[in-house]
Amino acid sequence: MSRVYNFSAGPAILPEPVLRQAAEEMLDWHGSGMSVMEMSHRGKAFVSIAEQAEADLRELLAVPDNYRVLFLQGGATAQFSAVPLNLIGDASSVDYVNTGSWSKKAIAEARKYTAVNVVAEGGNGDPMSIPAQSEWQCDPNAAYLHYCANETITGVEFPEIPDAGDVPLVSDMSSMFLSRPLDVSRFGVIYAGAQKNFGPAGLTVVIVRDDLLNQASAQVPAIWDYRRQAEADSMLNTPATYSLYIAGLVFQWLKDEGGLSAMAEINRRKADKLYRAIDESAFYRNPVAPDARSMMNVPFVLADDSLDATFLSEASAAGLDTLKGHRSVGGMRASIYNAMPEAGVDALIDFMADFERRNG
Amino acid sequence: MSRVYNFSAGPAILPEPVLRQAAEEMLDWHGSGMSVMEMSHRGKAFVSIAEQAEADLRELLAVPDNYRVLFLQGGATAQFSAVPLNLIGDASSVDYVNTGSWSKKAIAEARKYTAVNVVAEGGNGDPMSIPAQSEWQCDPNAAYLHYCANETITGVEFPEIPDAGDVPLVSDMSSMFLSRPLDVSRFGVIYAGAQKNFGPAGLTVVIVRDDLLNQASAQVPAIWDYRRQAEADSMLNTPATYSLYIAGLVFQWLKDEGGLSAMAEINRRKADKLYRAIDESAFYRNPVAPDARSMMNVPFVLADDSLDATFLSEASAAGLDTLKGHRSVGGMRASIYNAMPEAGVDALIDFMADFERRNG
Repeated sequence: MSRVYNFSAGPAILPEPVLRQAAEEMLDWHGSGMSVMEMSHRGKAFVSIAEQAEADLRELLAVPDNYRVLFLQGGATAQFSAVPLNLIGDASSVDYVNTGSWSKKAIAEARKYTAVNVVAEGGNGDPMSIPAQSEWQCDPNAAYLHYCANETITGVEFPEIPDAGDVPLVSDMSSMFLSRPLDVSRFGVIYAGAQKNFGPAGLTVVIVRDDLLNQASAQVPAIWDYRRQAEADSMLNTPATYSLYIAGLVFQWLKDEGGLSAMAEINRRKADKLYRAIDESAFYRNPVAPDARSMMNVPFVLADDSLDATFLSEASAAGLDTLKGHRSVGGMRASIYNAMPEAGVDALIDFMADFERRNG
Repeated sequence: MSRVYNFSAGPAILPEPVLRQAAEEMLDWHGSGMSVMEMSHRGKAFVSIAEQAEADLRELLAVPDNYRVLFLQGGATAQFSAVPLNLIGDASSVDYVNTGSWSKKAIAEARKYTAVNVVAEGGNGDPMSIPAQSEWQCDPNAAYLHYCANETITGVEFPEIPDAGDVPLVSDMSSMFLSRPLDVSRFGVIYAGAQKNFGPAGLTVVIVRDDLLNQASAQVPAIWDYRRQAEADSMLNTPATYSLYIAGLVFQWLKDEGGLSAMAEINRRKADKLYRAIDESAFYRNPVAPDARSMMNVPFVLADDSLDATFLSEASAAGLDTLKGHRSVGGMRASIYNAMPEAGVDALIDFMADFERRNG
């Protein structure tokens, strides 16, 4: 068996110790005689797994007591619908910042249910950037202000948390969740699909401030009703049990690695060295303004795009996998989530230098 | 390692060869150097897994060409919302048969979006039964007629497929899907959560006739839009990739076991012998009329319910696990899905006889 360095944007690389433990426990979890996959979600064994996962996530993020942590299904795309359906209340519109593809998808879903005010447009231009908050046209009566903290496709990331005043701030954090510490108290709702940074596709974490649990539309589907799921400990219906178990193992691994401050330091170092290698070369280029660059998703283009296919096939042969950029933008993208070891980034940088030497 | 006979109603027992293969492939699928959990859903490797899963499911059920097979998230409870949102079209109401808890939940969700006509009430009385179709008050202008083929909690199952005339017939088949051959052409939509009979919780199969793909409400969430998901091969958003991989292994196992006719024969034999043991005893009792008895979920009560706790603890000590009935009905329930070996049912029957001898 030979493991590759997997730079996929998601589903994405997971910590090898997590996968080893999952393999070992696959047929018999802790002497229960069954796989976690086979356990009733109402049974003591699985309830203990779910409770531990939530406790560990709360500890990692220092989630305040007045926030509920939900483990739901459907990915971030489901939350594009669930957020407006849960939060619209008596308001007549919602505010969204548009910084790229995922923002646009969130906006399109919200428009099915309410009027959407796009307060700012970013993530475009060359280099791509995010407009200063002083230029945003926010509505103080909006039900909430939504932004995508990190646009996975273009690698455009907010340098800081926006100030939403008294309007609840809502963020899609899928591709940067758990990559660094976070002040949860700044938010009304945070949501994140697991398949970027903490587990298998099919699991979504929603962290919601408890004063926002009572303003759902009558048409919210039961499984996305934050209040009902909070009351049912995310078990209004059968949750994605095995995915939650894997996420729980990732949370434990993060604690073992020193928590989110330690991860932030490693992630910062990984990103800095990769951007530096790109910036110091005339052969590679990253199209994002320095203060809007993602710490997790690093897109880059080759000066000569006729070399793209060769680059990808040689990288793959060198054990550097899934470096192709998203089909909507082309080029390359290295996603360097928590589980990507620094050695993987070093190997990529070495390969890029060598490729440039041979083709530049 | 000692595996138990797990009678859980869901998440439920899975075939041991499937779990073994999943464990073996956990860190490195087919020399790819990564787990299936880590694969991009757009990559060749995962697309091949998804295509094989769909092809095998189509072969097992002989799904006609004019039906689309979708792999979605959210379980059957999500479909309780998705069905009306996709199928309402220009109709002003929908028809539902109510045969128990799952029917009631489906009806409550549908009422959020349209007028619901409950055409018949069943699954009640002693013994519990299903009213003859001649007594149903169906509306020929309903958008569809919905029924729950097998009520998992009470073990009440339709003996045959209802005749819906020209109205599209829709069925929640979660707890009997793939337990026997099925004439898919009788249906407009079939849906089933994986966690009963073919995989981990978090995956849902929807089989939809292609003439029903163009009548969705403008408010259907994108991830549940049958037409858009059909056009995107169920990858409008990131699907529950690992769960689909496990389901694919189960489909292969079912083919290896001889397909659905072979499973039906074994399942019939398992159910018949368990019901016979119950009926021949004055100590145990099943509360369902013989022609409405489930082949998958066999509830039974002890004549003296003060013995319930002793029964459960002794059964568990004997390796017969998760036999407790649903909290809403009490008593016992043995779920005997495809993956429950006949030896497991034999062991249960032997234990029940022995328990009766010692306590009757």
